[in-house]
Amino acid sequence: MPTHPTTTFNGPIDELEQRFLESMPAIERWFRLEWMEHTPLFYSAVNIRNTGSKLAPLHTGLFPNGWNHLAEEMLPLAVQAAMAAIEKICPEARNLLIVLENHWPSPDYLANVVQLQRIFNRAGLHVRLGSISPDFHTTTTFPLDDGASVVLEPVLRSKNRLGLHNFDPCTILLNTDLRAGAPGILEDLHEQYLLPPLHAGWSVRHKNRHLQSYEEVAKRLGKMLGIDPWLISPLFATLPAARFTPKETDKEATGAAPRGVKVLLAAVDAVLTKVRRKYKEYGIHEKPFVVIKAHRSGSGIRTLTVRDTKEWGADLPAWLTTHYRGQHDLIVQEGLPTQERIGTTAAEPVVYMMDRYVVGGFYHLFTQSATHQSTDFAPLTFKYSTQQPQPHAPPGASAPNRFYMYGVIARLAMLAASYELEATDPDAET
Amino acid sequence: MPTHPTTTFNGPIDELEQRFLESMPAIERWFRLEWMEHTPLFYSAVNIRNTGSKLAPLHTGLFPNGWNHLAEEMLPLAVQAAMAAIEKICPEARNLLIVLENHWPSPDYLANVVQLQRIFNRAGLHVRLGSISPDFHTTTTFPLDDGASVVLEPVLRSKNRLGLHNFDPCTILLNTDLRAGAPGILEDLHEQYLLPPLHAGWSVRHKNRHLQSYEEVAKRLGKMLGIDPWLISPLFATLPAARFTPKETDKEATGAAPRGVKVLLAAVDAVLTKVRRKYKEYGIHEKPFVVIKAHRSGSGIRTLTVRDTKEWGADLPAWLTTHYRGQHDLIVQEGLPTQERIGTTAAEPVVYMMDRYVVGGFYHLFTQSATHQSTDFAPLTFKYSTQQPQPHAPPGASAPNRFYMYGVIARLAMLAASYELEATDPDAET
Repeated sequence: MPTHPTTTFNGPIDELEQRFLESMPAIERWFRLEWMEHTPLFYSAVNIRNTGSKLAPLHTGLFPNGWNHLAEEMLPLAVQAAMAAIEKICPEARNLLIVLENHWPSPDYLANVVQLQRIFNRAGLHVRLGSISPDFHTTTTFPLDDGASVVLEPVLRSKNRLGLHNFDPCTILLNTDLRAGAPGILEDLHEQYLLPPLHAGWSVRHKNRHLQSYEEVAKRLGKMLGIDPWLISPLFATLPAARFTPKETDKEATGAAPRGVKVLLAAVDAVLTKVRRKYKEYGIHEKPFVVIKAHRSGSGIRTLTVRDTKEWGADLPAWLTTHYRGQHDLIVQEGLPTQERIGTTAAEPVVYMMDRYVVGGFYHLFTQSATHQSTDFAPLTFKYSTQQPQPHAPPGASAPNRFYMYGVIARLAMLAASYELEATDPDAET
Repeated sequence: MPTHPTTTFNGPIDELEQRFLESMPAIERWFRLEWMEHTPLFYSAVNIRNTGSKLAPLHTGLFPNGWNHLAEEMLPLAVQAAMAAIEKICPEARNLLIVLENHWPSPDYLANVVQLQRIFNRAGLHVRLGSISPDFHTTTTFPLDDGASVVLEPVLRSKNRLGLHNFDPCTILLNTDLRAGAPGILEDLHEQYLLPPLHAGWSVRHKNRHLQSYEEVAKRLGKMLGIDPWLISPLFATLPAARFTPKETDKEATGAAPRGVKVLLAAVDAVLTKVRRKYKEYGIHEKPFVVIKAHRSGSGIRTLTVRDTKEWGADLPAWLTTHYRGQHDLIVQEGLPTQERIGTTAAEPVVYMMDRYVVGGFYHLFTQSATHQSTDFAPLTFKYSTQQPQPHAPPGASAPNRFYMYGVIARLAMLAASYELEATDPDAET
């Protein structure tokens, strides 16, 4: 199976690739200067959409799992990057505690943490795995597919430190996204390095903040490269506190939709109009769509895809009134249909980073035919490093060149997350 | 052809390998702490001897060429390490000038500098190649084997800066070992980063200083690992200012050998006695030898191998009186016969480093059957990273495990060079 479906690409994306490759030294210098001012995330993973016309990040994960899907050949890069990351944060480090998700670990998730354990062990740390689940009380050995096994231990919390029995780590690495909020057991650990910080959890992050940060850095990189930033970022509108419950003063009896519906439909039309203009400008003969979602994960708001508000007629206000009842912070975001295919299967690259370095990635394959809906997951490991471009290959013909571009977008999204966390840092000086 | 002749190893070296692997986190931490106090060389290459009983560096090159012999798969590691190195030295860097050796470049040497150019270009720099040869006046394009070409330009020196026509670099990388001394054109470049510094040149370095630095760091690492430091370092004696010219007051007429001969033969016997004792301790049934060489390269002193002073009888004093006429600083060093074989050919690993990171290497194959004499060079690229050990493989059975050990010794030699350069830094505060 080809590592990269090079034949499916042509048109605008190839010009973008060309521009990225020509500007490689300038791009790398730009990132170097950014990292002088901003702190890269300890580790991260970014899902990227390649629409055939543009590229943009779809998801920036700050507690990435899936490390087991990286190619074996990429591991030395991860180890080297981990060495650099540790040296910067805590050079005297001896022990690292990895905190797992609270659910009973699946074989795939265990393979992920074992891979992380291997990387940090080779980078020079004793690594043990801990559970902060209140239901996990007994050290448990899990068998692995390769005949080895892995030990998960319940954490022990003292007044100021978190550890395991006979294991006092100087650094704690979270591999759980804290979707349900940061538990008390992780708070006030001022003597230890907690990576990433608690405010990187999804209970704190707002998607609109990330989009805004990303828009800012994409504009700056775009300006430096002399490209339209739209080619590397999605259009979006944010709607804070949109109300979908009719107030008593609203004429509910007359059947008028709540105010939030009107505001949202106006925003949908506005974003769609902007996207249509861009499609026209770039000669893209597809029907654009937008995705409506909440600022925060776990808000219970159903994500909705809209191609045309008129097509729905009165059904859309009715649907929104029913499903979005209450008051919500919403985003209307340009939809990014993936045009990448492995064979006939839609594919989305996921790029993994350790500190400021891209260390590998894989394709997330969608087993359903829809271009923008995930139904199942199959990894296809990147064979090439993102730092192995072949500058003289014709655009669109070289997998390493495409990977270089993905690596740039992934780092841009990670930089945006870095801005985002600076803005939300509870310990920041005002 | 096997990348590593694992079957030829057994005995003491396997125990050493086991100890290195078990101590991996401690070793990596030890290096991390050393690099907090000492500055790694920008780039370096170390030739290592594996005698089957012990390992030691034979040569620590601070202006390494041969980068073209690194495996293509290792390049991302070199690029990533170069990114880290640049970021530390000069994050705002745009332009890098590589200064070549003065001789007319051979195809192999050109391939080496093109590889370096590629690495630093991918790390985010505009890289051009310059000659400081007083005989090189015209920009010259050299064809490469792969159909591409490379341009070499004469350097331009202004009062404070070195550059090329329309190219003002912030950093200058020397890929010439300055064996003939630092030329004036490289002096007083206080506005630019000159890497490595001029006092890293062979006209300044003394081999005894490197041996002494290496002995010091090997003792410390050995202590930390609980191993005899002899297993990772050669025994040696230094003889400063040994006189091989009979003074007028010496009874030349009587045929008595100059004083230097007696001192040297005593040192040879002393080192041989110590080595014999170690061989006995470790049950090594071979005849030890020592190598006599000068402190400094280019001294004109012929290197001499001696197994037994008695075997030579009167021939040795006569040979030394003839060939070592004058006064010299000499080293008597334990000989390290290579026991590594690729097929039936003796092989010596050469490990390449960028900043503190091992980024690849190759075997130097000796086409002559002698175990300690180089006659011709054939590279055999390392397939594995030195940071890819397989901790559960039996000792001696795994190429990546052997490479890990080589990477440790190479870094130890580089650390010794770092100590050495600190001690000889003309700008150091006293």
